[in-house]
Amino acid sequence: MFEEVVQDLIDQLGRFPGVGPKSAQRMALWLINQPDTTATEISRTIIDSKRKAKFCKICGNISEEEICSICSNPNRDRTLIAVVEDSKDLVAIEKTREFRGLYQVLGGSLNPIEGIYPEDLRIRDLVMRLGDGKVKEVIIATNPNIEGEATASYLARLIAPLGVKVSRIATGLPMGSDLEFADQMTLGKAFEARTEVKVEE
Amino acid sequence: MFEEVVQDLIDQLGRFPGVGPKSAQRMALWLINQPDTTATEISRTIIDSKRKAKFCKICGNISEEEICSICSNPNRDRTLIAVVEDSKDLVAIEKTREFRGLYQVLGGSLNPIEGIYPEDLRIRDLVMRLGDGKVKEVIIATNPNIEGEATASYLARLIAPLGVKVSRIATGLPMGSDLEFADQMTLGKAFEARTEVKVEE
Repeated sequence: MFEEVVQDLIDQLGRFPGVGPKSAQRMALWLINQPDTTATEISRTIIDSKRKAKFCKICGNISEEEICSICSNPNRDRTLIAVVEDSKDLVAIEKTREFRGLYQVLGGSLNPIEGIYPEDLRIRDLVMRLGDGKVKEVIIATNPNIEGEATASYLARLIAPLGVKVSRIATGLPMGSDLEFADQMTLGKAFEARTEVKVEE
Repeated sequence: MFEEVVQDLIDQLGRFPGVGPKSAQRMALWLINQPDTTATEISRTIIDSKRKAKFCKICGNISEEEICSICSNPNRDRTLIAVVEDSKDLVAIEKTREFRGLYQVLGGSLNPIEGIYPEDLRIRDLVMRLGDGKVKEVIIATNPNIEGEATASYLARLIAPLGVKVSRIATGLPMGSDLEFADQMTLGKAFEARTEVKVEE
């Protein structure tokens, strides 16, 4: 129904994840009504970022350099590796400022239905990193959903024989939430993983 | 928190309407994980579409030609003009196949708070089109919200003295909806604009 020139733009913008036909339409019409510079800037950044973005040779994080800023930071604790599914999980953890170790970015989670097997993720790289005995603990921080849990058990079984401590981030009630509205599984996990309250005397 | 190259891309994608920081992040990481051709295709289409897209000299619709395909179609009824806010409203009306006249695309609606006055819309073009007396009816199809209604009354007062019939698309309950869940204003309008049911004998 749109003139071809608009439809082409809608189709291309609709390729982005989470952008449905209505959103793509809105984005396309907005762009056409903007000054030329807007289209030029967006378009140039898409090309530039894609060209410059590499994956860190050590951990798989997105980086402009061969080695990312975390792996090349001498102040990070090299005895700890947190395993995450992708770069945005890494960023979420960095924001907490709770973790000062290194990362391994898998590039997804195991999902045989969608054809994602261990060899499709950066699992071999992780095992290689554990070879020199310097890493003392691997914290598996994949998502607490079916695929993330499957990936976590797979990794735990793979790493445990290497003599490295393997841990999993805790599941439980989110801070500020209501017991009443928690799903059964989360509440169940919260009971299972209860911690003793120590009273100072 | 993201490496600069990713952050730049997130910032640029976040300029699109309806794309919040989380969506922009998801879109950027997806793009970086795609083959180079994806970035090239999207980027090229943004530039091409923006360069090719013009506004029809007659109605203001987006068009690759000076005159859009509707205005240049000899089978359209030139005695009717539907006034819409933008091209996506035109497309929505075209999909109904109920209207065979021409359009006037205003490019927005009156909104003094956001600094949009009559001179910012294609209202003068509309008045010019009514000059030769060929147009018999102007159907105001701006949105039934505050700005759209204000635009509609403004246009009606402007056009009526020219001796052209002015009509407004109907407001009422949407087909398939429930009276129970209708808002008061819509239900009120539906009563006000009730139509007589004629029984064939």
